[in-house]
Amino acid sequence: MNAEIIAVGSELLLGQIANTNAQFISEQLARYGIDVFFHTVCGDNEARLMDTVKHAESRADLLIFTGGLGPTKDDLTKETIAAALGRKLVLDQKAMDSILAYFRTTGREMTENNRKQALVIEGSHVLPNHQGMAPGMVIENKEHTYLLMPGVPSEMKPMFIEFAKSYLTRHHARNIRSRVLRFFGIGESQLETRILDLIDAQSNPTIAPLAKESEVTLRLTAKHDCPEETVKMLDRIEGKVRERVGRYLYGYDEETLPEVVFKLLNRQRKTIAFAESLTGGMAAEWLTDFPGASSVLNGGIVCYTNSVKQHVLGIPSDVLNSDGAVSARCAELMAASVREKCGSDIGVAFTGVAGPDKSEGKKVGTVYIGLSEGQKVVSYLFHFNGSRRKIRIQSVKTGYDLVRRQLLNLPVLEQ
Amino acid sequence: MNAEIIAVGSELLLGQIANTNAQFISEQLARYGIDVFFHTVCGDNEARLMDTVKHAESRADLLIFTGGLGPTKDDLTKETIAAALGRKLVLDQKAMDSILAYFRTTGREMTENNRKQALVIEGSHVLPNHQGMAPGMVIENKEHTYLLMPGVPSEMKPMFIEFAKSYLTRHHARNIRSRVLRFFGIGESQLETRILDLIDAQSNPTIAPLAKESEVTLRLTAKHDCPEETVKMLDRIEGKVRERVGRYLYGYDEETLPEVVFKLLNRQRKTIAFAESLTGGMAAEWLTDFPGASSVLNGGIVCYTNSVKQHVLGIPSDVLNSDGAVSARCAELMAASVREKCGSDIGVAFTGVAGPDKSEGKKVGTVYIGLSEGQKVVSYLFHFNGSRRKIRIQSVKTGYDLVRRQLLNLPVLEQ
Repeated sequence: MNAEIIAVGSELLLGQIANTNAQFISEQLARYGIDVFFHTVCGDNEARLMDTVKHAESRADLLIFTGGLGPTKDDLTKETIAAALGRKLVLDQKAMDSILAYFRTTGREMTENNRKQALVIEGSHVLPNHQGMAPGMVIENKEHTYLLMPGVPSEMKPMFIEFAKSYLTRHHARNIRSRVLRFFGIGESQLETRILDLIDAQSNPTIAPLAKESEVTLRLTAKHDCPEETVKMLDRIEGKVRERVGRYLYGYDEETLPEVVFKLLNRQRKTIAFAESLTGGMAAEWLTDFPGASSVLNGGIVCYTNSVKQHVLGIPSDVLNSDGAVSARCAELMAASVREKCGSDIGVAFTGVAGPDKSEGKKVGTVYIGLSEGQKVVSYLFHFNGSRRKIRIQSVKTGYDLVRRQLLNLPVLEQ
Repeated sequence: MNAEIIAVGSELLLGQIANTNAQFISEQLARYGIDVFFHTVCGDNEARLMDTVKHAESRADLLIFTGGLGPTKDDLTKETIAAALGRKLVLDQKAMDSILAYFRTTGREMTENNRKQALVIEGSHVLPNHQGMAPGMVIENKEHTYLLMPGVPSEMKPMFIEFAKSYLTRHHARNIRSRVLRFFGIGESQLETRILDLIDAQSNPTIAPLAKESEVTLRLTAKHDCPEETVKMLDRIEGKVRERVGRYLYGYDEETLPEVVFKLLNRQRKTIAFAESLTGGMAAEWLTDFPGASSVLNGGIVCYTNSVKQHVLGIPSDVLNSDGAVSARCAELMAASVREKCGSDIGVAFTGVAGPDKSEGKKVGTVYIGLSEGQKVVSYLFHFNGSRRKIRIQSVKTGYDLVRRQLLNLPVLEQ
């Protein structure tokens, strides 16, 4: 079985938005072991959409459409597919009721064109839309399955997950399970080289590496008729991978480095504070993304200028004059001071040269990260590459990894 | 003339990345008035790619390919297009020289498969790659133009812009010019309603609204054979739009709110500092994205807990006990204190409830923003909606807009 994902909407062809729906659906289908051979984006144009449908029917079993189900004249996905299938559009009373209820609740007046959203293709299985008004639908005939969903990602995603659960699991008795291993501190080619024989030797589970923003992930996917066996297969291959590159592994699936640190701090009932020069508040900000951040994050000081380093953080002016702001000594004092001032268990400091110009005669990418806990203060020197933004992100991620290693008593990676 | 954008790469069909290249190219082509009727994504498979090329030739004049130009066996875009055109691949000495230079500079050893990257389709115009190794190419025959570019966005984008300048401007004598107006503080439907008659009446210039992360943009696009006339046409329609909604206009084209504030602070030689509770460092971080940020940003204090508000910022405990941390009085004291402590001209403070739970009995989305300059301290109360992340972003953008209005002596929008 293979699928084609067809997005309908001129806003995509004008470059106003990216087709993130296709990415989401592809990633979900990969988990179910369903091949996707094509993505197509087509505008709000009946003739071109009809051509797209016909061409997709010639090469795919499952046709998944997003977009074009709304109330306006531009929206013509279901009209076109109904025509392609020789079926009529009929009113779905449940969909109509929920549209009426929506307008009743919000007190807004319903315009006539909203009725159009309650029309569905005759003989389709209707998928309710709990986040909006346009329902989705599934049509099956002998040769193809057609899935129609709204284009708004917040409406499409829950609808797809609902569909995937009931439809895809029914059609795919074979059990497929994925696990993503997340690595930091090792490049993609270096990681691949170390496990190349594993990648080459394996067909089930499969091992798929991917590099993204200074991190590398490995997606392990196992297929077996017995669910317990897929877990054992994943455990076995993970064990082999860990033997080679386990020291770089920091998390699983959707976990991020800040999330891992957030959980560790929570579990150990420890608090943290950040003194940030080149990172400008990014380290603190990433942690505040999690609800309940205040149980682990006390606060931070963004000491962008030397004056703030001196007067708010209390770094002695002779250190700034002799060693400079970008120095091991300054990073260590910053970490110790922010820990003390914010009353946290751990203090982390970032100072360095984000570019584009040198600073204090130090090269762009020179970054010191200081770490303070109890009486212990240490700092590490890094040389990062890339744009200003990349250097700053790399700094914050490295800081989080250093905190993670400290909390888990793991050795620090050699620079 | 119309274009089809074809991305080649199995990583797209697995959902590992979104097809942002197609978005970028579409947005660029829209500026040149070139219609894009389809995006296609195809995997690293010769037969399916050949099918894609043939189908695109039947419906597009300009075929733009991204991806599949790398050194590995998987990369087969140029091989497939060469076969489709009945042409050979030949070595491009310039490309070879720059590959050799790359390996010489980095001190890495060149593996044999890197030679493959210097092969180009016979008779093509080679586009140099200044960010990587695989060159791009343009092939023109009587019926079609083929543009082949690497898939890595940081290599593709500068190459496309180079191509667009020389090729597209040559083929499009008709002058097309776009201008984007950027608005903050007004919703998309509200803005559209106020200028609906202008949108409906216009065909040249066109007016295209788009909503994104609490902002609305209007893209104005004018076509005329005389370049000066396109500018005049844009000025006229912009004037009409400004009459209706000019008070919400903050910038043009790619300008962001932090960028506008960064420029204004620079021009007025003023400095700023942030006291951030719910925003956790986001406001300071956004400003540090700009090279030279240290000329306007002194620093900031992330006062996530009341203890940091009290001991680092110096907010009296009786204010925190009586009014609470989420209060006008606290916001004003925070703004004044961070301004004084960081020695800046302006102090901005954010305190509020990001959710998911209430705090101090105050509803999720309740946000106070304090603003301090000289002896003047004010605060504003907002009620934002949406997710934790959305509330925090909305807070920071609103803060930047308040600073902008203060620097320009513009009235604050009613809440």
